[in-house]
Amino acid sequence: MKVQHQLNVRSYTAEGFVSRVQRLIRNTVIPYQHEVLWDRVPGVEKSHAAMNFVNAGKALRGEEPGDGFYGMVFQDSDVAKWLEAAAYALAAENNPELEAQVREMIGIVADAQDADGYLDTYFTIKDRDRRWTNLREAHEMYCAGHMIEAACACFEATGDRRLLDVMEKNAEHIYRRFVEEGAEGWPGHPEIELALMKLYRLTGNEHCLALCKHLIDVRGTDPTFYAREAEKRGWSVWGSDGGDLEYTQSQAPVREQKDAVGHAVRAVYLYTAMADLASETGDAELLEACRRLWESITRRQMYVTGGIGSTVHGEAFSTDYDLPPDTAYAETCASIGLMFFASRMLENEVRGEYGDILELAFYNTVLAGMQLDGKRFFYVNPLEVNPGISGKVATQRHDLPTRPAWYPCACCPPNVARLVGSLGKYAYGESADTAYCHLYAAGQATFDNGLRLRCETQYPYDMTVRYRAEGQGTLAVRIPAWSRETRIRVQGEPCAPEVREGYALFPVRGETEIEITLDGTPRFLLPSTRIPRLAGMTALKRGPLVYCFEGVDNGNVKALKLRRKEKPEVSAFREELLGGTVTMRVEARRSLERDALYSDAPEETEACTATAVPYYTWGNRGENEMRVWMNVTDAED
Amino acid sequence: MKVQHQLNVRSYTAEGFVSRVQRLIRNTVIPYQHEVLWDRVPGVEKSHAAMNFVNAGKALRGEEPGDGFYGMVFQDSDVAKWLEAAAYALAAENNPELEAQVREMIGIVADAQDADGYLDTYFTIKDRDRRWTNLREAHEMYCAGHMIEAACACFEATGDRRLLDVMEKNAEHIYRRFVEEGAEGWPGHPEIELALMKLYRLTGNEHCLALCKHLIDVRGTDPTFYAREAEKRGWSVWGSDGGDLEYTQSQAPVREQKDAVGHAVRAVYLYTAMADLASETGDAELLEACRRLWESITRRQMYVTGGIGSTVHGEAFSTDYDLPPDTAYAETCASIGLMFFASRMLENEVRGEYGDILELAFYNTVLAGMQLDGKRFFYVNPLEVNPGISGKVATQRHDLPTRPAWYPCACCPPNVARLVGSLGKYAYGESADTAYCHLYAAGQATFDNGLRLRCETQYPYDMTVRYRAEGQGTLAVRIPAWSRETRIRVQGEPCAPEVREGYALFPVRGETEIEITLDGTPRFLLPSTRIPRLAGMTALKRGPLVYCFEGVDNGNVKALKLRRKEKPEVSAFREELLGGTVTMRVEARRSLERDALYSDAPEETEACTATAVPYYTWGNRGENEMRVWMNVTDAED
Repeated sequence: MKVQHQLNVRSYTAEGFVSRVQRLIRNTVIPYQHEVLWDRVPGVEKSHAAMNFVNAGKALRGEEPGDGFYGMVFQDSDVAKWLEAAAYALAAENNPELEAQVREMIGIVADAQDADGYLDTYFTIKDRDRRWTNLREAHEMYCAGHMIEAACACFEATGDRRLLDVMEKNAEHIYRRFVEEGAEGWPGHPEIELALMKLYRLTGNEHCLALCKHLIDVRGTDPTFYAREAEKRGWSVWGSDGGDLEYTQSQAPVREQKDAVGHAVRAVYLYTAMADLASETGDAELLEACRRLWESITRRQMYVTGGIGSTVHGEAFSTDYDLPPDTAYAETCASIGLMFFASRMLENEVRGEYGDILELAFYNTVLAGMQLDGKRFFYVNPLEVNPGISGKVATQRHDLPTRPAWYPCACCPPNVARLVGSLGKYAYGESADTAYCHLYAAGQATFDNGLRLRCETQYPYDMTVRYRAEGQGTLAVRIPAWSRETRIRVQGEPCAPEVREGYALFPVRGETEIEITLDGTPRFLLPSTRIPRLAGMTALKRGPLVYCFEGVDNGNVKALKLRRKEKPEVSAFREELLGGTVTMRVEARRSLERDALYSDAPEETEACTATAVPYYTWGNRGENEMRVWMNVTDAED
Repeated sequence: MKVQHQLNVRSYTAEGFVSRVQRLIRNTVIPYQHEVLWDRVPGVEKSHAAMNFVNAGKALRGEEPGDGFYGMVFQDSDVAKWLEAAAYALAAENNPELEAQVREMIGIVADAQDADGYLDTYFTIKDRDRRWTNLREAHEMYCAGHMIEAACACFEATGDRRLLDVMEKNAEHIYRRFVEEGAEGWPGHPEIELALMKLYRLTGNEHCLALCKHLIDVRGTDPTFYAREAEKRGWSVWGSDGGDLEYTQSQAPVREQKDAVGHAVRAVYLYTAMADLASETGDAELLEACRRLWESITRRQMYVTGGIGSTVHGEAFSTDYDLPPDTAYAETCASIGLMFFASRMLENEVRGEYGDILELAFYNTVLAGMQLDGKRFFYVNPLEVNPGISGKVATQRHDLPTRPAWYPCACCPPNVARLVGSLGKYAYGESADTAYCHLYAAGQATFDNGLRLRCETQYPYDMTVRYRAEGQGTLAVRIPAWSRETRIRVQGEPCAPEVREGYALFPVRGETEIEITLDGTPRFLLPSTRIPRLAGMTALKRGPLVYCFEGVDNGNVKALKLRRKEKPEVSAFREELLGGTVTMRVEARRSLERDALYSDAPEETEACTATAVPYYTWGNRGENEMRVWMNVTDAED
């Protein structure tokens, strides 16, 4: 059972929870980020990303390049991700102002393309002779990849070919250099590979597929390449000498890689492309490598929130079971990449675990990346925050207790925007005769195979999901592994459908009504006994949502101890709180404050009620303490 | 009540536990370190410390300086600390071979002294024009300080004045430059200040006291000094630009400092000298600053093992209550420095808390720094070790699970040697008519005030301590705060002596027999509710010894949960185990292994018996898991 394509972005119209987040992206995030890219927001980190394109255009025309290049070597990608997100917004609703902004942005990008198809403002402005001499650090293919994704989105959403033509020409330039002319090497930051698969599927241009395959096959085949490259060029962006091959997943050919290592975003972008290529070409060895890497991440290196890449050192995977909650890195972009990887694995094989983790990453780490008002963002997503320590001490300087407005390296905010805007692609999929529901995403979906679907639900807060399907074929709905008791009705009657690999299969003949009620029982999770940092602790989850305990609701959260035998009380939907949410209250014990650093006095505790809120809503009520993993007591009174 | 002087090193002859450790230092550590300093131990990090002196001597004589300088900029201090330790060994017993080695070493040091009194092999070999241009980084005064301490020890132990004359000349050189000629600045690494106090007390040379006072008074008075110095010289040892004033405790004049900050060893060496100076001069403001800094360390920033400086970043204090057990730094030298600080505070005011922490640091972190066979050493003393993570992942690369033989920066091993060799100075003190017992140190002590003492005990394993005092005066014995029930007999009769500030006072008229039985009940300690990383955990302590749980005794230590209501069973003294020790066994629960990263299945546990060994003995049975802070269960069965 193979799902060949993600759903076209225009084929899903969101309602409910997804629609609420998408509107936030459209109404707040995209307009705000547009102004940031043009440096029009006072008090926010300078971006200059748009002006880099303007200045590169001038340089190409032989004019003085204005105030030159500013920002990270990959600053171009911020424009690309914004364009992609903006395209999805235009697909969802008409917006002449945004359309004009997109047109203007595409214009400056097109102007910045060199005659031979090359496109990268850093080198075009700074030094054209250094093009392609620093694959390890300089992100030329990474930026190209993001712009290719933007081009695909613009075409798909609006039918505007202009950026698509620019980027197909750019892809041909890269194809010539690395495939035809046989230039050595592979990009330090994977991204172009997955983008080329999108471009190939949209245009049918075989060079895109061939270039993707080449870049994936060549990675890690020569352990000396980056060191030789560094020595040859004699300059550096960040001082890499070409060592630390794991950082760029270059330690071995990809088919031989066993553990997810190195920079987490790079890793999941690479694995996504590997899974893409495997599903396109039927490469069984490549798929097997993807399965191994998936297991390495999700069975041994993933936070309970779907966060990955636990260490700040290299923004990287650490090692099996090293999952500290307070010093966590767990970059928002890495969980977005994990969603990419999960969705591409679903194209290879429909298995519930991919959908479960797609959902876990989305509702927890990805959404936590954005403030509820859409105005501020987390790059790093800790599972524990202690004011006075988090964001302050050297080991936790990256674990900020509240979201900043923008970052010098602003990869995460636009990444959230484009992910949310295209959520239909992840929520729904199709094969010849089947429509797949990977996520419970309210709204309407139409499939190329002729099936049509309407989904009504207040998920993730209400556990009942109603589908009305039309057409001829099969509707395959993921039943999450966490739903211990699921009640299903078809045409109003209780039903026990066939469940294959975590998906319930419903034949659709004409109009079919399906109602699924998932298990909304709050559950205390236990960590593996192999995770040193979580020994003896518990986390609270309901449906796909991991909950956390904040100081504003609970005082000293460290002093709380949960009792796992208690049944948490689930609130009604609270429209007024945290953008509309469901909280939980649970009877607990509280240690009375002990000032002495260490003492042998007996512990004194008192009964209390602890209040939990969804993890994705944390840090929206000012700086305060937060914990996902809580201490436990088994005492009777 | 003021204790003017530490006991002379010759006035205490150790027996029992102290004697066992001192013999290890004399028979193994000192001979081994001597060979290391001369680079005669195959497979061990090159030291070259002795040859640096030989080569500096050649340079001064106008010869080619052999193979030049090698090692850290403060490599000289390794020779100094070895000399100091060797002197204490010679005070304890005759050893003609060691005496010859000391004589040879003093000879090469004397030969390396410049005509003007300057002594530092790094600059003498490399570039004499750069002398005194990098106070921030180059450790000239730090090395001088250690050599002054060695000189004092050599004179005190053997009556040999040679090194003392060398270092008095060196001190005069520094006095001329910084006091008479008014050169700017203060040393980046405090150490010379406390050494000058020793030299002053031994020689009566007022320039030593004046120089010490000057260096303490000038510290932190000019926040621009280090930056100006860096700019002026244009070269650097480690790339410091003179910022980060807290690292060197230069953020404010010392009398205004409120929190212990920066590099922990530097901090406690500075505070030691401040306390020294305060007791010498009666400077009440300085003493008040010392009290504040003492509280900052011991009430908010100290591990339960007496380890201090919790972060690897700058080997430094972090912030209040940031005391992670697994990423701990807790350098051995820092706890040695804490013992210095405690002992100098005791010279200002006899209060039990200083003695309690003196004892805590010694029996736990300082002793843990050395392998039981005296052949390997810890620089860093974590309170939790997880094989596969500790010593491996980026955040815990410094937390090694077993002791290495030597370090490129070998400050800790010789520091342990000199501390242990002079333990009598910390264990005993005196004032006009009183002999103070700060530590229970078996053996014989004679005091300048005429009192004589014999202490018999198998402490820290046996809780009974017998003193036979002779002379006229008062014996003041610290009764630790942890001893909840202390039984005391004088001349065989139960007695309730006056206890003042934690010290029991016994009048001595002729021969007086005193027997003190401390409370050896094992106790579960609770951490302050303000320490994020220790919430919900407990540690086990008996007497001065913190215990830990190792994998070799317990399997998966993470899966254990202690019950604080249990009474741990204390073993008899086990001569054969870990160099002779007392273990504890306690009924506990063990979580059955859970492989799944996270699961909502009920927890399954089984009864088990957990075995604890003293923290200082950990890591002596191969690489394995270790925990001081343990999870807790209150379940009844």
